[in-house]
Amino acid sequence: MASEWDTHTSLTAAGDGLFGADLDPGWVVGGGVNGGYLLGVVGRAVAEAVPAKPHPLTVSAYYLSASRPGPAQVSTRVLREGGSVATVAAELGQEGDTRITALATYGDLRSMPSDVATTAEEPTLPPIEECVAASLAPDDVRRTAPLLERFDMRIDPACVGWAMGAPSGNGHIQAWFRMADGHDVDPVGLLMVCDALPPVTFDLGRPGWAPTLELTVHVRAVPAPGWLKVSHRTRNVAGGMFEEDCEVWDSAGRLVAQSRQLAMQPRS
Amino acid sequence: MASEWDTHTSLTAAGDGLFGADLDPGWVVGGGVNGGYLLGVVGRAVAEAVPAKPHPLTVSAYYLSASRPGPAQVSTRVLREGGSVATVAAELGQEGDTRITALATYGDLRSMPSDVATTAEEPTLPPIEECVAASLAPDDVRRTAPLLERFDMRIDPACVGWAMGAPSGNGHIQAWFRMADGHDVDPVGLLMVCDALPPVTFDLGRPGWAPTLELTVHVRAVPAPGWLKVSHRTRNVAGGMFEEDCEVWDSAGRLVAQSRQLAMQPRS
Repeated sequence: MASEWDTHTSLTAAGDGLFGADLDPGWVVGGGVNGGYLLGVVGRAVAEAVPAKPHPLTVSAYYLSASRPGPAQVSTRVLREGGSVATVAAELGQEGDTRITALATYGDLRSMPSDVATTAEEPTLPPIEECVAASLAPDDVRRTAPLLERFDMRIDPACVGWAMGAPSGNGHIQAWFRMADGHDVDPVGLLMVCDALPPVTFDLGRPGWAPTLELTVHVRAVPAPGWLKVSHRTRNVAGGMFEEDCEVWDSAGRLVAQSRQLAMQPRS
Repeated sequence: MASEWDTHTSLTAAGDGLFGADLDPGWVVGGGVNGGYLLGVVGRAVAEAVPAKPHPLTVSAYYLSASRPGPAQVSTRVLREGGSVATVAAELGQEGDTRITALATYGDLRSMPSDVATTAEEPTLPPIEECVAASLAPDDVRRTAPLLERFDMRIDPACVGWAMGAPSGNGHIQAWFRMADGHDVDPVGLLMVCDALPPVTFDLGRPGWAPTLELTVHVRAVPAPGWLKVSHRTRNVAGGMFEEDCEVWDSAGRLVAQSRQLAMQPRS
């Protein structure tokens, strides 16, 4: 059976690198559609445009206008395709407006050298059953954020004080993560995972929508099956903007994705 | 008098968002032209394309082929211009080939909110006179890397063991930095500073050219005059690739730029 993710990101090829998509209302959060889901739709189109390079290595997306559920178009243009990597420009549009413009370099992660010399440390999280399920969010939150139904997300209790009006001020949120339907996340799905957690500004006592200007994701390995650990941090809140760094670690203890986004601070 | 940087990045406007550039041989390193300099040339073209938004906020560049000194063309296309920010696509080409394709969002850093809540810690460096001047590099290095003449770069002695065959293995290089002609670095110049230091893989005992796949720079403030501190780190060397995170701090102790690039590991 197809996973919910595959269904929600399915595309209709229209030739010449053009694809039709249907943005599912299940990914709405607040007034818009989750940027990670949109990046996943774009990422899947790129994968179809360069079938010999199925995996994102790096994707940079610039968010131009807020998307709405419903029909969308993704156009892809192969800028260069070599033996091992291909670079592609892509745009997601709706109603004649560009929503997202992106650049991406794709390859095949299975054919990359297998050496690993990672000095980054895997996030330490309490056992899953001691973490706070996002499904415990109040009804009014869940009504405005149906995307919470897409995941099984268990937030480290040390990073969830903001939900009770007591943000830690550390600028750090980390959680266990898997899809609600139990399907494993693939490399294109990691593009979504990097933007799935609540904005790290919640932990700074700045609730509210934090519009993304730019999001770049590096995918470094095909994730092993099972639960992922996702960590978000910010270290530079200044000039009305903040950066959000995300790491995704797989069940084999491997750092499979790193992302950074630049977002506007919520007005508080 | 014009700074060397302004002269080397000067453009000839050809209308319709097109600009002519002349890549100066003084920025050669190894077999190619420094990617930070190229990004500066692209960044300057974007600034000229949207004059009401003179400063890069975020720029993502994908490197497609190696540039050579000499004539180049930069094409810019404004994707969206609002009241405070503009997003632009840009390409640098030579001899009919695209060298770099980029996306950028520009604004005016002087008009951004002045709040700062940075938790990142400023790099600790020995006094400038106790650091190792890049101009002390052996003659054969300086011959293949004329770009070293562009800077006054003083590397932390704790991070320069690789130059004597004893890399620390930490994946960390930091240095004091200013332009050789004493002119201060402006926001577009920061795009170059983020790719000016030797590859952080030198500190891992992996010398050699590390081709950049993608480089994204966030510029967060107009740098104060004077010496900059520049720090490069890598935390995830895997799959034949590594990420390189750069921070640039100004003389007022402000984190003015953050960048991350994905590069191919040098073959050792």
